[in-house]
Amino acid sequence: MKDFLQRRSFLKVSALLGSALGIPAISHAKTTIDEQIERAANVPKAQGKSVIGLRSEPIQQVRIGFIGVGNRGSGHVKLVHACGSKAKIVAVSDIRETVTNKTKEWLESKGVKDVAYYSGKADAWKEMVKRDDLDLVIIATPWEDHVPMAVYTMQQGKHAAVEVPAAYTLEDCWKLVNTAEQTQRNCIMLENVCYGDEELWMLNMAHQGVFGTLTYAECGYIHDLRELLFSKDAYYNMWRIRHNQKRDGNLYPTHGLGPVAQYMDIDRGDRFNYLVSMSSPEASLSEDSGVMTDPSNEFHNKKGFKHGDMNNTLIKTQLGRTILLQHDVVTARPYNRINMLAGTKAFHVGYPSRMTIKGKDSHKFLKDEEYKALKEQYKHPIWAKMKDEIERNGGHGGMDFVMLYRLIDCLNRGMPLDMDVYDAASWSAVTPLSEMSIKGGSAPVKFPDFTRGRWKEARQLGMLAQL
Amino acid sequence: MKDFLQRRSFLKVSALLGSALGIPAISHAKTTIDEQIERAANVPKAQGKSVIGLRSEPIQQVRIGFIGVGNRGSGHVKLVHACGSKAKIVAVSDIRETVTNKTKEWLESKGVKDVAYYSGKADAWKEMVKRDDLDLVIIATPWEDHVPMAVYTMQQGKHAAVEVPAAYTLEDCWKLVNTAEQTQRNCIMLENVCYGDEELWMLNMAHQGVFGTLTYAECGYIHDLRELLFSKDAYYNMWRIRHNQKRDGNLYPTHGLGPVAQYMDIDRGDRFNYLVSMSSPEASLSEDSGVMTDPSNEFHNKKGFKHGDMNNTLIKTQLGRTILLQHDVVTARPYNRINMLAGTKAFHVGYPSRMTIKGKDSHKFLKDEEYKALKEQYKHPIWAKMKDEIERNGGHGGMDFVMLYRLIDCLNRGMPLDMDVYDAASWSAVTPLSEMSIKGGSAPVKFPDFTRGRWKEARQLGMLAQL
Repeated sequence: MKDFLQRRSFLKVSALLGSALGIPAISHAKTTIDEQIERAANVPKAQGKSVIGLRSEPIQQVRIGFIGVGNRGSGHVKLVHACGSKAKIVAVSDIRETVTNKTKEWLESKGVKDVAYYSGKADAWKEMVKRDDLDLVIIATPWEDHVPMAVYTMQQGKHAAVEVPAAYTLEDCWKLVNTAEQTQRNCIMLENVCYGDEELWMLNMAHQGVFGTLTYAECGYIHDLRELLFSKDAYYNMWRIRHNQKRDGNLYPTHGLGPVAQYMDIDRGDRFNYLVSMSSPEASLSEDSGVMTDPSNEFHNKKGFKHGDMNNTLIKTQLGRTILLQHDVVTARPYNRINMLAGTKAFHVGYPSRMTIKGKDSHKFLKDEEYKALKEQYKHPIWAKMKDEIERNGGHGGMDFVMLYRLIDCLNRGMPLDMDVYDAASWSAVTPLSEMSIKGGSAPVKFPDFTRGRWKEARQLGMLAQL
Repeated sequence: MKDFLQRRSFLKVSALLGSALGIPAISHAKTTIDEQIERAANVPKAQGKSVIGLRSEPIQQVRIGFIGVGNRGSGHVKLVHACGSKAKIVAVSDIRETVTNKTKEWLESKGVKDVAYYSGKADAWKEMVKRDDLDLVIIATPWEDHVPMAVYTMQQGKHAAVEVPAAYTLEDCWKLVNTAEQTQRNCIMLENVCYGDEELWMLNMAHQGVFGTLTYAECGYIHDLRELLFSKDAYYNMWRIRHNQKRDGNLYPTHGLGPVAQYMDIDRGDRFNYLVSMSSPEASLSEDSGVMTDPSNEFHNKKGFKHGDMNNTLIKTQLGRTILLQHDVVTARPYNRINMLAGTKAFHVGYPSRMTIKGKDSHKFLKDEEYKALKEQYKHPIWAKMKDEIERNGGHGGMDFVMLYRLIDCLNRGMPLDMDVYDAASWSAVTPLSEMSIKGGSAPVKFPDFTRGRWKEARQLGMLAQL
């Protein structure tokens, strides 16, 4: 990095100044892309005390309110209900009354009657969050609402669980960190993929040394969403396609990156150091919108989508490991999160899942029975222990149920949560940093250290320690 | 790119000066990495006339000499022999007499007697190249010998065919281009993968619009070479592992990149604009050398190999398309060149080979019979026409035979060759540019335009035009 830092040293003074004054790491309005890149890693003054390892008093029954019970949120309601007496569904809010009514119907069909419902206006959720009988608020709303809702939730003294990505600007990442530290509340990002059967199995193997020295990983979010993006109803007010219309970068990094960050102990002994990002031209959405048959669709015959069809982002960690992170939601191809991890003793890649072990014929993947044997040998305890509940309740193959069960169980027991606000910020920061890199012609951009130096502490992940 | 260029403008003057004076694009000895990156794209004064579309008089029977007939070269001798009366094997050289003797034995067993053999000293090859009865010299030697041998061959008035990579410094890339232009001789890099059945089929489809608008590609060279690298005999004087010992970057880019460059018409309507490169830590070679049982091996218990286990390089083309290029020769995993091409109408990926077509269920790969049908529909004429010879002669599944057949056939007919010195330089330049990017902390590095502006001409590839 020496030369990269020298090259930028002419901007150092202003940058340090900015950081000393606790100026937001980046202010798009007035700064050039060079200054934005220079200031990206600035760490503002702490406004509270670190929430690493935060424990709160055990909560025998977690009292939960929901903001947003549409596509994603309605699933969370069902899975929380499946946790039985560990949690109590107290209140539900959604801007659309039709949607809260649906949830009401479902809950009452399950005999859950004493629930308060909020809807019909934009800030109905605020009235709900103000209630004095909530421990946790689960937020499943459009990306732009995540931060204001999570911040307000913590300021009202509740723990916040927010959908992915938690934030998509650096200022917002810092808002989450600073508010959590000020209020000493949990802010967990609901990255369900970290709880997948394959992902927890690999996490287990990585931490038990099966992969040897970890060298690189590849992950991503490859999901042809064109039909949903152009649909008038799939996303409230077509919010999602508006991001592809206006922004170029990795808009949805955490499903791929979260598990990899945990394999590599990011912010628990290693950290993201810098990234470079590059996007292909935009072509698929424009071409599809040009042949769209419904002229009443707002995105009929639209041009000028900013988001390149494929985004490739390369991340270098402090220990030198590399992560290739991809994002493509518009190419006609099957779903793929890649889930590749490489070390000096083993190699794994998903879609379909295959593995090699050094010492065996390294030019061939393991036979199915060998792979299955490893799967059994290193199965994560929670997937072994809760097999039946997981199968019964499901949610993306069970990962959603395991995630919400762990969240509630840790609060029941007064344990630190599996993922903290620093994970939410570090993983989500890839979006604004990749946007900056692209604006700078794929220039390297350094990550801010949201832990303020504590990434060096080799903390064990909750899901490996607290079962 | 605006800001990226602005950021570097403070060095522009010296850079322009360098280019005006035709100073070699980069001189490692005295310049900082910043200056090297700044000057990478400099184009020295032309010293001859462009060789784009170069034709020489038809040669009824091409008279061929070989430099290096070890692992790779001995295969070329057999395949040239298989071309029958189209070519004549005139002379063979190798520094090792045991190796020339082996070739002599084989040729005489086929009744080929009147061949001159040169060996026993380092420059035996020069005496051979000086002969006045050679049209073409085929060079299959250690990487460091490619450029001096190819340059001398052209200076001696012969066409040069050189193994991959043709060169691994920018000065050497320019030496090849300038010498070809001065001597008006062909310098073709023997990138055999461009002639593979799958690759020529995809080239055909890409140029017939099956993929729609091309957006991105992925390719690479993933080949666990550890056993060969540590072997005392596999590579003459263990030349190959010495590169992994001293250099970090993509050391072997062309097998993956060559076919992709042809799908995308690189230097025939598009060009490589800039790249960023990132390597993982080095771990596998050090760990293996530490447990090596043979203390007499020069690389027993060696540390400090410079080459990271995985190199990822992202290339942006002038038309904005992106190419992900990988290099990993030390991880225990199966061989893979990826061979992925994405467009707005189709997507293909290799290892195993699968494809999607827009309009069909885009979330699923084509069924085997659908894939096979496309394979037949767009089969490249040469693979259809020469099926039997290709099966009989083989060479990496036939690609080697097709390559040498095409080379000789074009010379027989006085046609331009399928690949020219500009392809050799543009594809090989990835190695030095990726090394610079890594030294600069993954800084973006611009490609020099070896065609001096003629990349804009939409030239048709020989193998698509001249059958």
